Amino acid sequence: MSDTIKIGIAGLGTVGAGLIKIIQKNSKILAARSGKSIEIIAVSALSKSKDRGVDLSAYEWENDPINLAKRDDIDVFVELIGGEDGSAKQATEAAIKHGKHVVTANKAMLAMYGQELAISAESNNVNLRFEAAVAGGIPVIKALTESLAGNNITRIMGVMNGTCNYILTRMEDTGLPYEEIFEEANQLGFLEADPNLDVGGIDAAHKLVLLSSIAYGTQVDFEGAVLEGIGRISIEDIRAASEMGYRIKLLGVSTINKLGLSQTMRPCLVPASSPLAQLDGGTNMIIIEGDAVGQIVLRGAGAGEGPTASAVIADILDIARGINIPVFGQPANSLKKVPSINTTVENSFYLRLNLKDEAGILAKVSAALANAGISIDRIRQEVHETDAAPVIIVTHPTERDLLNKAIAEIEATSAAIDPPVVLRIETV
Amino acid sequence: MSDTIKIGIAGLGTVGAGLIKIIQKNSKILAARSGKSIEIIAVSALSKSKDRGVDLSAYEWENDPINLAKRDDIDVFVELIGGEDGSAKQATEAAIKHGKHVVTANKAMLAMYGQELAISAESNNVNLRFEAAVAGGIPVIKALTESLAGNNITRIMGVMNGTCNYILTRMEDTGLPYEEIFEEANQLGFLEADPNLDVGGIDAAHKLVLLSSIAYGTQVDFEGAVLEGIGRISIEDIRAASEMGYRIKLLGVSTINKLGLSQTMRPCLVPASSPLAQLDGGTNMIIIEGDAVGQIVLRGAGAGEGPTASAVIADILDIARGINIPVFGQPANSLKKVPSINTTVENSFYLRLNLKDEAGILAKVSAALANAGISIDRIRQEVHETDAAPVIIVTHPTERDLLNKAIAEIEATSAAIDPPVVLRIETV
Repeated sequence: MSDTIKIGIAGLGTVGAGLIKIIQKNSKILAARSGKSIEIIAVSALSKSKDRGVDLSAYEWENDPINLAKRDDIDVFVELIGGEDGSAKQATEAAIKHGKHVVTANKAMLAMYGQELAISAESNNVNLRFEAAVAGGIPVIKALTESLAGNNITRIMGVMNGTCNYILTRMEDTGLPYEEIFEEANQLGFLEADPNLDVGGIDAAHKLVLLSSIAYGTQVDFEGAVLEGIGRISIEDIRAASEMGYRIKLLGVSTINKLGLSQTMRPCLVPASSPLAQLDGGTNMIIIEGDAVGQIVLRGAGAGEGPTASAVIADILDIARGINIPVFGQPANSLKKVPSINTTVENSFYLRLNLKDEAGILAKVSAALANAGISIDRIRQEVHETDAAPVIIVTHPTERDLLNKAIAEIEATSAAIDPPVVLRIETV
Repeated sequence: MSDTIKIGIAGLGTVGAGLIKIIQKNSKILAARSGKSIEIIAVSALSKSKDRGVDLSAYEWENDPINLAKRDDIDVFVELIGGEDGSAKQATEAAIKHGKHVVTANKAMLAMYGQELAISAESNNVNLRFEAAVAGGIPVIKALTESLAGNNITRIMGVMNGTCNYILTRMEDTGLPYEEIFEEANQLGFLEADPNLDVGGIDAAHKLVLLSSIAYGTQVDFEGAVLEGIGRISIEDIRAASEMGYRIKLLGVSTINKLGLSQTMRPCLVPASSPLAQLDGGTNMIIIEGDAVGQIVLRGAGAGEGPTASAVIADILDIARGINIPVFGQPANSLKKVPSINTTVENSFYLRLNLKDEAGILAKVSAALANAGISIDRIRQEVHETDAAPVIIVTHPTERDLLNKAIAEIEATSAAIDPPVVLRIETV
């Protein structure tokens, strides 16, 4: 490589504009640290005329990102288009085939096609890097791939979706119901075009499965992840959790054992005093546990122009410095394919049931729990003005399978008006 | 390099033994991730016969670490001897001269001789890596050198000495005075042979100056750091801070501006609800602020066998993967030498004065503060059984220079029996 590293940027949204700003503003620092001058050759986006707050006049324009990816005069193709397939994937494949390194922030594409893209990149001897795809500016990909590479990683946990975190914390702060805060987040532009990507836990699960792959040397497995969004969390849940000393967070947890890989992304109760509980709106936190290092906690902005662009430029600098390590930390053809499992770790659970307001109903619920061997830690029934009696139950530690059995029995009795809300209580 | 990376380890204390355990236990993971087999060729320490809980029979023994450093059959010399000069430095220099990469956990050596060692390593085209020197297993060196390399770093803060943190948190938990907890820490083996390295803030400052160098592209400057230990913190300070909603932490802060570099390591008051305040005994936390990324917080075990060895093995794996970047993130001969300055940021301050129990004394103190333009936020005088009247004053935000002027005036009046305890209040 020469003294210049030449890049092409496809996608000029928030992150693309942020990247250009860093390259323009911090060019001296970048050159001092990487030993190369970072030069933008060409850019591509849907609209050439749109004002993005950055001066693009020095760069060539490509209407087609695939043409940009193939240009002979670039070393690195930066994919910031987004979307799991379509032009993002086509351009990425074209870049790899043409011997270009790829830097991407595209968690959806990697969660679905990470394995095949890694195989392709490694056989073409180019980098495919994605620090920006997980938790914005937090250097979690590098932490797992490099800093903690000597560890047998035992668990990964994290809050990785700022929008869900915003909605949950705003519900608690304002006392307003989910629907209203959802609409507020929408107005603020916090939601993806398909909001279910955020509130359904999909975006966060995309991130979790990428971390799992690096941590455990396994093939990226999004299909195997169990996910549950925040759409059924009511203001009553937020309040009840708060009164018991908890907060509700959309929490990802990934563990592995001899039977397989467990990946869950679910709303959970965490102690109000825990670092996880104290995360504001867009702040992300990743907790990594390894056999040697113990527990490492990483916190920072999980999205936004500056933080995400900071991660993109770090990947570009690594490429400029000649760093070339496998996409998921070990050669893609050595990544294991392992079954998905449900862990059998015991947890306490929070249940909110909407019961019919009839005599004997609570006895039926108690019996169902007892039949599954589950004992109740606390129970409370609020005053209610409707026919439905909201009951909150906190169990003693039990296995999820047993709880599911009890819930099936409760549902069979028609005691509950709608499916119960079940939230795991994490003691982190 | 071949398919094997051959290492020699000098110093078989806690970290050395931890490193050998990782290499023996996680050999498959290390090979899968680095593409090389990590082989220990030879080791060196003071006593060959001592039981360290690891099997050394497969390794050659060198009595002299310098001979180990020069061996033709090693690629990487791991320096875990410690001490700012003496055999650690001689062996490091010998290794570099003989074309060996060096991995070290030696903050003292690098804080004093980092610049000359970096120049030497880079001119010999070998790595000199030291992730383990700062904050144990927390990947802060890599975060600054690589992950945040696109940022103009604006501030670094951190709690980086587990022993001081242990003493301060134990004082708060037990209500026992400094001297007793110091002795307890000593019995537990938490203190360095020279305890002033810990409680004097020297060890923590060694770490801070290494981070500054990477963050700002400046030469390591330990002499320019302002340090103040925890030896004068009394149980009354701990209590008073707690009652006002603060905790006392030995906090390092480093910032740069056009006039120069400010590096301070001092006990400070931090809000009890802040993440910094919630650190237990040996846990470290580093906060990094950059123009793009915003604030990144890294937390983990700052010392101990596993965490520190995790950082050492990460450096070895990087070398195995062919990563070779400058010691302090940019070529040592491009690091700037900048003046040390005192920042003029305004802070509130906590003062504890031991005043003579005489009429008019408090008036003198108030006048001295007023003369320096400092207004008082809170003041309290406790009941006291001795002739000395302990008075605690919290100021409104002011500059440290003004406060020093006021304190000089107070001391000139002989109102105070001994020099006041002055602690900055950080609002992080």
